[in-house]
Amino acid sequence: MNRMTGMIEQRTIEPEQFSEYIGGTIKVHGSIYKIRKMSGFAFVLLRTKREVIQCIYGEEFSKFSLNEIGEEYSVVITANVVKEERSKTGVELQMVDIEVLSKPVAESPIVINNKRVDTSIDNLLNYRPITLRNEKERAIFKIQEGLCQAFREYLSNQKFTEVRTPKIVYAGAEGGANIFQLNYFGKEAYLAQSPQFYKQMMVGVYERVFEIAPVFRAEKHDTSRHLNEYTSVDFEMGYIQNFEDIMQMETAMIQYAMEHLKEIYHYELNLLKVKLPEVEGIPTIRFMEAKELVAKEYKREIKDYDDFEPEEEKLLCEVIKKKTGSEFVFVTHYPTRKRPFYAMEDTEDREVTLSFDLLFRGLEITTGGQRIHDYEMQVAKMKERGMTVELFESYLMMHKYGMPPHGGLGMGLERFTSRLLEQENVRLATLFPRDVNRVTP
Amino acid sequence: MNRMTGMIEQRTIEPEQFSEYIGGTIKVHGSIYKIRKMSGFAFVLLRTKREVIQCIYGEEFSKFSLNEIGEEYSVVITANVVKEERSKTGVELQMVDIEVLSKPVAESPIVINNKRVDTSIDNLLNYRPITLRNEKERAIFKIQEGLCQAFREYLSNQKFTEVRTPKIVYAGAEGGANIFQLNYFGKEAYLAQSPQFYKQMMVGVYERVFEIAPVFRAEKHDTSRHLNEYTSVDFEMGYIQNFEDIMQMETAMIQYAMEHLKEIYHYELNLLKVKLPEVEGIPTIRFMEAKELVAKEYKREIKDYDDFEPEEEKLLCEVIKKKTGSEFVFVTHYPTRKRPFYAMEDTEDREVTLSFDLLFRGLEITTGGQRIHDYEMQVAKMKERGMTVELFESYLMMHKYGMPPHGGLGMGLERFTSRLLEQENVRLATLFPRDVNRVTP
Repeated sequence: MNRMTGMIEQRTIEPEQFSEYIGGTIKVHGSIYKIRKMSGFAFVLLRTKREVIQCIYGEEFSKFSLNEIGEEYSVVITANVVKEERSKTGVELQMVDIEVLSKPVAESPIVINNKRVDTSIDNLLNYRPITLRNEKERAIFKIQEGLCQAFREYLSNQKFTEVRTPKIVYAGAEGGANIFQLNYFGKEAYLAQSPQFYKQMMVGVYERVFEIAPVFRAEKHDTSRHLNEYTSVDFEMGYIQNFEDIMQMETAMIQYAMEHLKEIYHYELNLLKVKLPEVEGIPTIRFMEAKELVAKEYKREIKDYDDFEPEEEKLLCEVIKKKTGSEFVFVTHYPTRKRPFYAMEDTEDREVTLSFDLLFRGLEITTGGQRIHDYEMQVAKMKERGMTVELFESYLMMHKYGMPPHGGLGMGLERFTSRLLEQENVRLATLFPRDVNRVTP
Repeated sequence: MNRMTGMIEQRTIEPEQFSEYIGGTIKVHGSIYKIRKMSGFAFVLLRTKREVIQCIYGEEFSKFSLNEIGEEYSVVITANVVKEERSKTGVELQMVDIEVLSKPVAESPIVINNKRVDTSIDNLLNYRPITLRNEKERAIFKIQEGLCQAFREYLSNQKFTEVRTPKIVYAGAEGGANIFQLNYFGKEAYLAQSPQFYKQMMVGVYERVFEIAPVFRAEKHDTSRHLNEYTSVDFEMGYIQNFEDIMQMETAMIQYAMEHLKEIYHYELNLLKVKLPEVEGIPTIRFMEAKELVAKEYKREIKDYDDFEPEEEKLLCEVIKKKTGSEFVFVTHYPTRKRPFYAMEDTEDREVTLSFDLLFRGLEITTGGQRIHDYEMQVAKMKERGMTVELFESYLMMHKYGMPPHGGLGMGLERFTSRLLEQENVRLATLFPRDVNRVTP
């Protein structure tokens, strides 16, 4: 019987190995990204797993015709490796021979191999399977990968356990109308708006837990900041002394992520010319003070005492940056009536909660806070709000049988990515965005 | 303005630090797991993030009454650290004082602090928020965490890019009736049965991609191996020479995972007495040969020439183990009519596909294979099957504009976990399982 041993033969050479082969001949594979014909020779750009590398076609050393290849062909190239100081890889690849593995049957209707894909956002998204092949487009999602890697690494180092909670649920954590309903074998069920209930339950099990997974919001808002499916970076931690513990943890997690990107993702940071923010210290300001600060600085009238208008979030970030240099700001003590039923109230002022949002470059990217851990307190608050306590029996089980003081947060991964890259629209930081009008590709 | 610096104060001592404090007094926190009263003293087991540690209550050194504490209380303990060779942590913690942070309001209706939770599977799952607090129950999901960590680490080392593809989709990859339908703002949409279409698209972008995320199957089967929501470990790789490349990659990934568990998760492996399988070489056998082998060895008649019956999977694993020593087996060349429309057929025999399943300890845990990358071939096969090609326009975009030869697989994380731990039911390897009858907690 034949056996799989796990030995994977390396048949072609990777870009970081090129310099070991100077003076020799190697095979490299990839998709032909762009052919730039000059007189008597051509530059052939090859898209590999991460880098786009430059090869030279020249009549004196190439044993094939340039007509045999075209853009988006999948090929294996045989090339001479010549030392070349001016190249990023330190070498020049002279194409000797070519093997074509597959060819497109049509030319892309959208030019994808210029510096940027120059088209409308609708086209960019409609043709996602090919527009993502653009080197800058795909770099965005390498950076997003790096953020997730860093968050996981940091939280694991801090002894958080990674959990996987269900996305088909019996009740919404946020309540309200913005929940997708599902026919679940004749029963009513919903798509999870957040892993809130489950991550709290898991605090009773592991004390510290995190999850990076999709959440679903049936919001009809069609704005540059809303997605109907997005990735939520959630953590929840027990034995907190106060809700500042959560903000400290998030600050440290973001600090770690920025260092991780610098270390592992400099190729993409350079390509996209990303300016990473300083995260040495993130200022905090109480919600009402923030409202008043913006009103005063920008001579605006406060219309909504419960929440920020999007314009106010932008202005708040602007004035905080001016006063403190920070591009992040924690806004704390949101009004109780605007926060969910599980939010812990401030014992000194029950009108406000021990909660926070994190704003970054004009946009709210995180919501968090301390939760109620006491059973009686939780049941009383649910009754106050007119909720049917019986429906939440399995949620309340943890409170009933003992829970430590705890809290946590949820961060929108696409929002964070898009502000990090200073994109206009959160869809640009989503591989295949879902909005009110879009469910394809 | 106050600032969050990311500095997280350590207020209590973690178990691995205990030995540094011998002769001193420390604070530790956790939930009281069990109190065992003896004459004149008591053992108090404290559940911390990962370990259950033993503390001693003794009238000569404890400055509080044993009546002040109870099971599932959240506490901070002040303790003298005394050297004790017989203890796992190398020390004995003598409880001096206690601070109670919170208390349950009722006693758990199910005993959770024995070696095993001794109750029906229904009770175990109905009371999940508390039954998971049992030390063996929670160890299961630490091991599952370890598997995911290892898979991600291994695939990242192999230059796979982690992607996040949508779970609300416009068409099912597997087709058929077992798909959940959703009202998406008046449009028809579905819950993804697999990231198949998207991971293939992303091969055109990064060459190698992976995703570990939930998938949804509206199957009405209520068996010990079916879940309606499960975690799929998916990878997809371009520039393969043949479909063996995929099996080699999976073999290496599993080898890496077993080593990772040994290295990082020995606490849980010991607790659950897990026997890790050998993965030095995984035998392969063609589907028809496997059918015939089982028929011959066990004197059975072949009834279904298209697929295995569950009993046959068990018997096949049994005979393969007897003949080769391996607890894994790759079954290859499944019949074309039972594989999806994107499966690559064997050019030597179009009745079979270049596909495989991986069976482990009697259960299919992975399905994979080479995919069709040629546009004309894919369209022809869809037409043969009577599919409406126009509905798959965005899927076929990648084939049209150029795709390398590629393939990949999807592994059921809960199935793998449950076979690794030799559990009877895949629900036992799921935090909050979803089946035909269960959508809570």
